Amino acid sequence: MSYFAASDLPGLEKIFRLNLINSLTGYKPANLVGTAAPNGATNLAIISSVLHLGSDPALLGFVMRPATVARHTYENIRATGRYTINHVPKGREGAAHYTSANFPQEESEFDACGFTPEYANGFSAPYVQESRVKMGLELLQELPIEANGTVLLVGRVQHIYLPDDVLRPDGSLDLVGAGTICVSGLDGYHTVLPPVRFAYARAGKGPQPLPG
Amino acid sequence: MSYFAASDLPGLEKIFRLNLINSLTGYKPANLVGTAAPNGATNLAIISSVLHLGSDPALLGFVMRPATVARHTYENIRATGRYTINHVPKGREGAAHYTSANFPQEESEFDACGFTPEYANGFSAPYVQESRVKMGLELLQELPIEANGTVLLVGRVQHIYLPDDVLRPDGSLDLVGAGTICVSGLDGYHTVLPPVRFAYARAGKGPQPLPG
Repeated sequence: MSYFAASDLPGLEKIFRLNLINSLTGYKPANLVGTAAPNGATNLAIISSVLHLGSDPALLGFVMRPATVARHTYENIRATGRYTINHVPKGREGAAHYTSANFPQEESEFDACGFTPEYANGFSAPYVQESRVKMGLELLQELPIEANGTVLLVGRVQHIYLPDDVLRPDGSLDLVGAGTICVSGLDGYHTVLPPVRFAYARAGKGPQPLPG
Repeated sequence: MSYFAASDLPGLEKIFRLNLINSLTGYKPANLVGTAAPNGATNLAIISSVLHLGSDPALLGFVMRPATVARHTYENIRATGRYTINHVPKGREGAAHYTSANFPQEESEFDACGFTPEYANGFSAPYVQESRVKMGLELLQELPIEANGTVLLVGRVQHIYLPDDVLRPDGSLDLVGAGTICVSGLDGYHTVLPPVRFAYARAGKGPQPLPG
């Protein structure tokens, strides 16, 4: 058994600490956030912190550190109020990871990493054509996290696009069928196997697996 | 292609909408949050919203709706300032899901769902013995999300426990080796395959897969 106390962490080598702490939460969703500057220049950034906040209204959040490589994404969201969230599809792991490189501002990660910007329904932010599940969002609120200078961006889902065969009759998504992958730590990209599903839990009944 | 606009969502059947919106972010981490009331009574809740917020200091967040089934967890965290986060291990998916049932306050989810509370280093909140990766946290900040009355609980990692064989030499965790699973939607529990990993991304170099 390995054990780390909070007081051990400052003494760890920096990359070791980043790898460790970024692995603690378990698997993370793999999404590409697409934005456009007011002049139309596009940006694309891999983000592993997208979070469900509520269903009615449909709200998603994600965390940004304003001073990092993804700052153009943050600036575009603040300037336009709009962004897209696109699931990273299986087979594009390397290209998605490569969006985290520090490209010059005049170079779009769409071009540099081999993704195709796509526009729909008059929404100014670009979707990722290669993604099968994609959403357009409008920024609602910025929540500063005092303890470390990061910001939780709260957005409202305005548009949802997904293939018919990914939408189950009960409204849930077949993410395995969509080819969606997940992330561990800073650099691990994982294929996922089909789920076991359980009925809404009721005390006294025990867990009830759903068929299929 | 299926398309939903924000204006379509209020008209959807409620369970369909919950399933849909809860699936949008992609895969979610599967964690059990353990707490104890000031009188020692324990609670355990499955939480799929645990989020990395920062590595130095090591901060994790998760989202709660104060009025839901997990309100005892929220009350215990507010009363004691302490909680544990424990990865759901493969083979315990049903038991983990069952913690979401509305048990009477005098019944611990540890007993009702077949998990074993474990205490270490004088920390008052119970860990889950059956989990291989577990952390003890202290509450730092509550961030209200105005748009829907949920709260982001920001906590600082105080204790980390994990098996030696899960800790790679570079500090990252072998979550597949740990038997950690992930979640989709409200009720899907997925086994995950080993990752492809990529080196720190540098513009002009293209994606560089890591060996192994």
